[in-house]
Amino acid sequence: MEVAILGATGYTGCELVRLLCRHPAVEITFASSESSAGSSLSQVHPQFYRLCELELQPLRLSDIPASVELVFCALPHGRSASLVPALLAAGKRVIDLSADFRLREASLYESWYGQVHPAPELLDKAVYGLPEINRAAIAGAELIANPGCYPTAALLALAPLAAEKLIQWESLVIDAKSGVSGAGRTPRQPYHFPECTENFRAYRVAGHQHTPEIEQCLSRLSGEEAAITFTPHLVPMARGIFCTVYLRLRRRCGEEQLERLYRDYYRGHPFVRLLPPPLLPETRLVRGSNYCDLALRFDERSGRLIILSAIDNLVKGAAGQAVQNMNLLCGLPEETGLTQPPLG
Amino acid sequence: MEVAILGATGYTGCELVRLLCRHPAVEITFASSESSAGSSLSQVHPQFYRLCELELQPLRLSDIPASVELVFCALPHGRSASLVPALLAAGKRVIDLSADFRLREASLYESWYGQVHPAPELLDKAVYGLPEINRAAIAGAELIANPGCYPTAALLALAPLAAEKLIQWESLVIDAKSGVSGAGRTPRQPYHFPECTENFRAYRVAGHQHTPEIEQCLSRLSGEEAAITFTPHLVPMARGIFCTVYLRLRRRCGEEQLERLYRDYYRGHPFVRLLPPPLLPETRLVRGSNYCDLALRFDERSGRLIILSAIDNLVKGAAGQAVQNMNLLCGLPEETGLTQPPLG
Amino acid sequence: MEVAILGATGYTGCELVRLLCRHPAVEITFASSESSAGSSLSQVHPQFYRLCELELQPLRLSDIPASVELVFCALPHGRSASLVPALLAAGKRVIDLSADFRLREASLYESWYGQVHPAPELLDKAVYGLPEINRAAIAGAELIANPGCYPTAALLALAPLAAEKLIQWESLVIDAKSGVSGAGRTPRQPYHFPECTENFRAYRVAGHQHTPEIEQCLSRLSGEEAAITFTPHLVPMARGIFCTVYLRLRRRCGEEQLERLYRDYYRGHPFVRLLPPPLLPETRLVRGSNYCDLALRFDERSGRLIILSAIDNLVKGAAGQAVQNMNLLCGLPEETGLTQPPLG
Amino acid sequence: MEVAILGATGYTGCELVRLLCRHPAVEITFASSESSAGSSLSQVHPQFYRLCELELQPLRLSDIPASVELVFCALPHGRSASLVPALLAAGKRVIDLSADFRLREASLYESWYGQVHPAPELLDKAVYGLPEINRAAIAGAELIANPGCYPTAALLALAPLAAEKLIQWESLVIDAKSGVSGAGRTPRQPYHFPECTENFRAYRVAGHQHTPEIEQCLSRLSGEEAAITFTPHLVPMARGIFCTVYLRLRRRCGEEQLERLYRDYYRGHPFVRLLPPPLLPETRLVRGSNYCDLALRFDERSGRLIILSAIDNLVKGAAGQAVQNMNLLCGLPEETGLTQPPLG
Repeated sequence: MEVAILGATGYTGCELVRLLCRHPAVEITFASSESSAGSSLSQVHPQFYRLCELELQPLRLSDIPASVELVFCALPHGRSASLVPALLAAGKRVIDLSADFRLREASLYESWYGQVHPAPELLDKAVYGLPEINRAAIAGAELIANPGCYPTAALLALAPLAAEKLIQWESLVIDAKSGVSGAGRTPRQPYHFPECTENFRAYRVAGHQHTPEIEQCLSRLSGEEAAITFTPHLVPMARGIFCTVYLRLRRRCGEEQLERLYRDYYRGHPFVRLLPPPLLPETRLVRGSNYCDLALRFDERSGRLIILSAIDNLVKGAAGQAVQNMNLLCGLPEETGLTQPPLG
Repeated sequence: MEVAILGATGYTGCELVRLLCRHPAVEITFASSESSAGSSLSQVHPQFYRLCELELQPLRLSDIPASVELVFCALPHGRSASLVPALLAAGKRVIDLSADFRLREASLYESWYGQVHPAPELLDKAVYGLPEINRAAIAGAELIANPGCYPTAALLALAPLAAEKLIQWESLVIDAKSGVSGAGRTPRQPYHFPECTENFRAYRVAGHQHTPEIEQCLSRLSGEEAAITFTPHLVPMARGIFCTVYLRLRRRCGEEQLERLYRDYYRGHPFVRLLPPPLLPETRLVRGSNYCDLALRFDERSGRLIILSAIDNLVKGAAGQAVQNMNLLCGLPEETGLTQPPLG
Repeated sequence: MEVAILGATGYTGCELVRLLCRHPAVEITFASSESSAGSSLSQVHPQFYRLCELELQPLRLSDIPASVELVFCALPHGRSASLVPALLAAGKRVIDLSADFRLREASLYESWYGQVHPAPELLDKAVYGLPEINRAAIAGAELIANPGCYPTAALLALAPLAAEKLIQWESLVIDAKSGVSGAGRTPRQPYHFPECTENFRAYRVAGHQHTPEIEQCLSRLSGEEAAITFTPHLVPMARGIFCTVYLRLRRRCGEEQLERLYRDYYRGHPFVRLLPPPLLPETRLVRGSNYCDLALRFDERSGRLIILSAIDNLVKGAAGQAVQNMNLLCGLPEETGLTQPPLG
Repeated sequence: MEVAILGATGYTGCELVRLLCRHPAVEITFASSESSAGSSLSQVHPQFYRLCELELQPLRLSDIPASVELVFCALPHGRSASLVPALLAAGKRVIDLSADFRLREASLYESWYGQVHPAPELLDKAVYGLPEINRAAIAGAELIANPGCYPTAALLALAPLAAEKLIQWESLVIDAKSGVSGAGRTPRQPYHFPECTENFRAYRVAGHQHTPEIEQCLSRLSGEEAAITFTPHLVPMARGIFCTVYLRLRRRCGEEQLERLYRDYYRGHPFVRLLPPPLLPETRLVRGSNYCDLALRFDERSGRLIILSAIDNLVKGAAGQAVQNMNLLCGLPEETGLTQPPLG
C-alpha cells in the first residue's frame, strides 16, 4: 500500500518515517515539507541516510499520487483541517496527527485552540484513534483523529475505571510529565538546550489544550460528566511521557480486584502492559516502542488510588499509534511494524 | 567560630563545605569521613583543590577540638542519633541533617525508618529547623533537626494556608520531583548514569519516609489532623526539587487574596520568593542558591488551588538551610554566606 | 538456531537480547546471570516484560542445552577465557564479547589486562570479528573475538588508509569520546548520575587497554608497525562513541580521492556510511542501529587529515556486531535482524 | 564604581550580572538589551528576581550615564566594534567580550569573520585580556579584548611551553569540547534540546574562527610562527570547555620538570590550578568558578605530551575573565568577586 506523509520533517513525521520505512506492507511514496521542500529527507534527518532517500515536496494536494491510499497528516493544528476535506474527497483515507479532529464540538476547539474550526462538518465523521477503546470503529474509518500524547497516557491509565463508573470525578488529578520532543521541532527559547538541561518546571498550569480531549473521552467511556485537573511539566529528556493519576473510587476495591479489572479490560490489546509489582513504569522502559506501561497503587493512609503510566510520546503518543491505527484500518495484524523492543 | 562537619564527603557534607569555606564568620576545623579518612577533602572532591585542604578524620568524638562550638551532622539516619547525646554533653550545639530528630514520636520514627530510635529522650529538645516557620525557637536551640528536602519544598508551599486553616485535608495531593543527588552519593543501580539519563519514574509510591514529617509540621501549623498523599519522582538532573501541590480551600479565596496571604506570611523571610505572574518556578532558577520559589494558580474549572514550589535540594533542602539555621543560632544576619545568586 | 547468552544482564548481554528476541532465525534458549540467577530476565530488565521471559540461570556449562549451537559470552574479561575451551570442546561455536581473544599475544594481554591469560593456546584460533575487514575468515570461525567498542570506531575510520599504507604513523592521534554505558552496568562512583551529568572528562590517558587492540589490527592491515596515541573521554550520555582521528598522509591525496578510496573499500559493507558533505557524524544519528558513520575533512592549513566516526557502542561496538558476526557464521544475510533505523 | 553592560540578556551578559551583582566594588547602573528593552532583567532571567531589578534599556550610547566608568560589551561581533570608538571617545574604559578586538590584523578578522572590520584603527590599542600572560598591560588598558572561550582553555594549557619555545608546531593538535551555552542564547535547530541531549558531534572542522586567535597568541608568546589544528565538538551539557592538547616537545622533559615549569609560570596566578596526579580536570570541577584546571601526561609509547584543561566557558571563558580584567584595570585584588567555589 502506498502512503503519503504531510509534514515529514517534524518529530512526528520523522518518527512515522522511522516506523514505516521498515513496515512490510507499506511504501511511502510522497512526503511533504514546507520548510525543506527540494531537499531529500536524509539531508534534513541524516539518520535516514541510505534508509530513506525520499525527496521532500512542497505541499500541493494535486501532487499526491493517485496511487496513494492513505495520508498521514503531521501538520500543525488548523493546517490539517483545511486540507482534510479535499483529501477525503479525493478518496484517500486520512490519519490526522494534529488536534483538529479530536474534539467533537467546534466551539470547544475554538475556545481551547483559539481559532475557528476550518471543517466542522467533519467532526462527526472523525473516529478517535485510541485502539484500546475504539478498535471496531477505527477499522472502518475514513478519517482518524490520532490522539494527543498526554491524552493517550492519561486515558489508558483511566479507561477501565471510567468504563466501570468507578471514578469520583471531583477527586481526579492528573499530574503529567513530558520530554521536550513533545514541544515539537521548531527551536524556541524554552526548549533551547541550556535552558532545559538540569531543569524541571510546570507549564500551562490549569490551561493546557489537552484537558478537554481527556475529559471528552472519559465522559464517553463513563456516560458521566468528567472533569479533571491536569498539569503538564517539562522533563530534561527528549522522549517520554509519565502520568501520575490520583483519584478516589466510588466503591472500595482491593489492588487485586483492580488489577483483574485492568487485565480484563486490556486483554487482547498487545501494547498495554500492566506491570506486576513491585515494578513501576519508567519512560526508559518504553522508549522507542509502542507500549504503554501501567501500575496501580492503593494509598491506604489517604484512601486514594494512584495510577502510573508511561509511554514514548513520539511512538504510542503519536506516530506508533498512527501506524497501529493504519494496521487496523487495513486489516493487518495490529502489531505489524511495531514489534521493536524498547531501547531501554 | 569553629565548626565541625561529621560526614563531610557525602553530597550534603560537601555542600556544607562549599558554603562554609567562604562564610565570613566560620572556620571548619574538623571534618570526618568514614570512607576516606586519611585523605584530604580535595582528593575526594577535587573542586576544593586549593580552596579547602582539610584532612579527613575518622569519626571519633574525642578528636573533635574543644574549640569547636557547633557540629553539623551529615551522617546517615540512625548514626546521627547515636552520636548526638555525647556531642550535646560535651557542650556543642548540633545541627543534624539526618532524619533522626525531625519526628516528635519515637514510634513514628520506628515505623517509617525501620529501626529503634537511639536517643528518644532528645526528641522533645530538638527544634525543627525550618526558619520560615520556626525562627524564634531556632535562635535558642541546642539541637536543630534540619528538615528533609521534600518537606522543605512542600511545607513552604503550604505553611500560609495551614496556618490559616484553609486546607481541605482530604483534597491534598503533593506530587514531588527530585534530582538524583537527593539519593545520596553512594553508587547504586537505580542512580547509575545510563539508567537515569533520559528517564523519568516514580518511587516509593504511597510509602516515602518524608510523609510523616510533612504531616507533623502541617498538623502543628494548623492545629488540625493533617493527612497527605505524597508521591516522589526521580528527574534526570543532579539538583533540584519541584513540588506540584493540589488542594481545595475551605473558603473561596481569589488569587490576589492568596498572594497577599503568602506575601504577609513570608515578609521578612529573604529566601522565599513568591514569583509574580506569569512567572512559574523552575529548578534551574534556584540552582546553587538558598531560595525557595513559589507560585499559586487557581484552576477555575475544578475549583482546585495548584501551588508550585522549587528549591535546590542540596542548598535550601539541606546544607544551605543548615547554614541559615547556624546564622540564626549565632545571632548573625540570616543571609550571611548565602547570598550567591542562582547559577541559572 | 538455538543460542545461549552467558552474562545476559550486563548492558552487552541485555542488548543481545534486544536484538535477538526479534531475530527471525534465532531462539535464545539459555541465558545466565551470576547476580540474578533465579529471576526472569524481565524482572531485571523490565523493558522486556512480555517480550522475553527467559529465566536466568547460574552459569554451569553442563546446563547449556545440547541443542544450543552458538554461545555468546558477554562476561568480564578473564572469565570468558576460562570457559571458552570447554564450550569449544562441547562443539559449540563461540562469539566472545570480552577482550580475552582479541590480542594475538598472551604477553600483551597480560601487560594490559594485568592477569595471566587462561587459554593462550586458543589465541591463534580466534578470529577478530570486525566483518568489514575480516568477513571471509569470520564465516568459517569456531571462535570469534568480538572487537572492543573504541577499536571498532577507530579501525573503521582508519582501515582504508592502513590498507593503502597511507598513514604517517608518528602523526596519528585518536581522540575518542564515549557514552557512560561503555563503563558497564555495575554502579561505581565515577558513573553515579550526579557525577556524570553536565560533566566531561578524560580517563586512562596514555594507558587505555584498547590501545594494543587498535595497533595490532592496524599493523596487520598495513604490514607496518603501527603506533598510536589514544585518549578516551567520558560524555554525559548513555550510548555512543565518537572518534576524532588526526593524521598526516604519506602521499598527498585530495578529499575526493580519499572519498573514492573509502567508498571502494566499504562497497558491499552495508553498515558503514560515508556521509556526503556537509554532513558530519553525530552519535544520535546512529543510536540504536548497527551503523558506523564516517566523514573525512582535510585541514589545508596544517596538512592534516581529520576523520570522524560515530557508532552506538552497544550495537556496532558490541552486541550488533556480534549479531552481524553470527549472521556471517550461519550463512545468513549480514543485515538479518539488524535493520532497525537509528532512533535519532 | 559604576559599570554598564551592553547586551545584558545573552548568556555572557547574564553571567556578568550574576558575578557583578554581588561584587563589592561595583554597581551596574545601565544594562541594555535590544530584544527585551522595557522589561526588567528579572522578567527575562527570573533567577535574578529580587537580586537585580535593573530595567533593560535600548542600546543608545547617549543614555549611558556619565557616571559610568567602565562598559562591558557583550554584543555580537561586528556590533561591538561599531560602538567602541564612541565609548572610548566618551572617556569610558571598555571590556569587549566579542571577537572584534582580539585579532591584530584586520585582514585576518575579515577572512575568518566574513565582514570588514568597523574600527581597524583601534586594533593596536586593544589589549588581549588573558591576565595570566598579559597582566601588566591589562592594568593600564583603555580597551580590553576579552579572549574567546576556546582560546582561554587552549592558551592556558600551552602558554608555558610556548614561552619556552618547547613546542614542535607541526605536531600540535587541539581537540576541544564545549557545552552548548557556548553557542549563545538564541534558539537554533542544532541547539534545540532534543537534538543535543544524548548526542556528541564535531562542528566547523578545520574552520573554526577561534583558530587564528589561538595561533596569534602562541606566536607572540614563542616568537615563532605557530600553526595549529583545532577541532571543536559539542557536548550535551550547558557549561564547560575541555581541551585535550597533543604535541611533541623540542627537547625531552620529564613530567616532573614540566610540572615545575607550569608551577613557576603560573605562580601568583590564583585561577590556574595544576592538579596533582592522579587527578585529571573535569568540567564539573570548575563549574560556576573562574578556575582553569590543568594536568599533564607524557605518553611514553608515542613520545607525545598530552595536556588537559577545563574551564567554565561562561566564567573563565567569558564573564569571569572580564571581571578579572576589570579588577586589574581598577587596581582591585584580582580575585575580588570571583571567590565562589565551583558548584561541583
